[in-house]
Amino acid sequence: MSDFKYTTTIEVRFSDLDAYGHVNNAVFFTYLETARIKLFQERFGDFLDGQLTFLVTHAECDYRLPIVLNDSLQVTVSVDQVKRSSFGFSYLIHDGNKKTFAEAKTVMVCFDPKKGKPVAIPAPIKTVFLNQ
Amino acid sequence: MSDFKYTTTIEVRFSDLDAYGHVNNAVFFTYLETARIKLFQERFGDFLDGQLTFLVTHAECDYRLPIVLNDSLQVTVSVDQVKRSSFGFSYLIHDGNKKTFAEAKTVMVCFDPKKGKPVAIPAPIKTVFLNQ
Amino acid sequence: MSDFKYTTTIEVRFSDLDAYGHVNNAVFFTYLETARIKLFQERFGDFLDGQLTFLVTHAECDYRLPIVLNDSLQVTVSVDQVKRSSFGFSYLIHDGNKKTFAEAKTVMVCFDPKKGKPVAIPAPIKTVFLNQ
Amino acid sequence: MSDFKYTTTIEVRFSDLDAYGHVNNAVFFTYLETARIKLFQERFGDFLDGQLTFLVTHAECDYRLPIVLNDSLQVTVSVDQVKRSSFGFSYLIHDGNKKTFAEAKTVMVCFDPKKGKPVAIPAPIKTVFLNQ
Repeated sequence: MSDFKYTTTIEVRFSDLDAYGHVNNAVFFTYLETARIKLFQERFGDFLDGQLTFLVTHAECDYRLPIVLNDSLQVTVSVDQVKRSSFGFSYLIHDGNKKTFAEAKTVMVCFDPKKGKPVAIPAPIKTVFLNQ
Repeated sequence: MSDFKYTTTIEVRFSDLDAYGHVNNAVFFTYLETARIKLFQERFGDFLDGQLTFLVTHAECDYRLPIVLNDSLQVTVSVDQVKRSSFGFSYLIHDGNKKTFAEAKTVMVCFDPKKGKPVAIPAPIKTVFLNQ
Repeated sequence: MSDFKYTTTIEVRFSDLDAYGHVNNAVFFTYLETARIKLFQERFGDFLDGQLTFLVTHAECDYRLPIVLNDSLQVTVSVDQVKRSSFGFSYLIHDGNKKTFAEAKTVMVCFDPKKGKPVAIPAPIKTVFLNQ
Repeated sequence: MSDFKYTTTIEVRFSDLDAYGHVNNAVFFTYLETARIKLFQERFGDFLDGQLTFLVTHAECDYRLPIVLNDSLQVTVSVDQVKRSSFGFSYLIHDGNKKTFAEAKTVMVCFDPKKGKPVAIPAPIKTVFLNQ
């Protein structure tokens, strides 16, 4: 739908591991968030300050391979859909080479805390997501 | 498919909140895990010690309402499907009354770390899941 | 100095464990915070809403025994010192019986976010801490 | 006592922030751990695999400045003391320039899980710590 792509590296922390010695399944969602927030900060930082928040309304992850401490990680974000006030992202958690650790999706809604309700995605952000 | 149900309370911690003042979306998956592990410990504790692990292969969550510090939380687990080596759980995160904060699902596989591969779900566990 | 005491239970979560199978050392500080915030909410909830924050300026912990998943935990908070704008707490992390898992201390300062500086501890809170 | 120094960068994650919008005080200890484990992996990786663990017996932190999402962070580790089976580290959490966010210390003991007791720090590690 859009060929927008954003890739960033994530550093695995010892504290991300659980008692099985692998990155805990909930922490994968923290990795998605970390990538997403870096994307927002880098691309929309000035625009966003204090004005809007993006609330996650759906998140899902398919786990392919366990992640261990020394794994080199990248998260690649792409855009699935852009509606009036919501948008969907797909994610690959991978090693930058041939290993895919997980595939994931989130749906988010653009929310105005002052108005207490969803609002239209600002045009400059929509333009980036649609890669126009 | 099965009328197995398990409900437990979860105490919200201040550290579960993120900069928006709500429980962070990734922490919802920690709540699912906490409920799941309590269920396993209470029902299958003796059976499991060191022998088998249950790996999450899929997890998803639909967020309905934000959770704040003073919310009273319960997680109710039910069984969606039971196959040879995998099973699916559904979860409600709710207040024990009328509020549903989230609905979620996980698929898990019964894994033998010594053999390094999925194995059949032990019969006593299968029986509980199928509520027979 | 004061015989104020507050004790609360903490539920160990699977996600608190690290790759060694014990509660991670940083999580002990989350337990202290959880106890502290429960104390503040229960005793000073109405007083505090949005007006003041308590910033940690020092924290320390002596680890005595590892904590595992099934341990029954309590945190007992006592008051070490109360100054104009800062106060010190001591904590025991224990099992309610004979086991002490850790001893800890924090120093906190009463901070007014609107003024951007430390302020005097409100008299009603000081009275509770001094157990007068 | 020793002029051994190790410095590494830490990436602040959105999930490190608490409801005050600053990195949570317990997460500072996760930063210390992350730096420590990176040091161990980089310098002693081959030596350590599965043989020894380093248990934290004491940890403390003095908080100087709040850390926010866009702060650029470094942790510098230095060696305070080296005894037979235990050693002490000092840490600075800083921005690589003029800002010091926190100063911290940990005491750790070299533990053999198979023997279930503290053991002497291996000579090659001791040599590195003493910078000889």
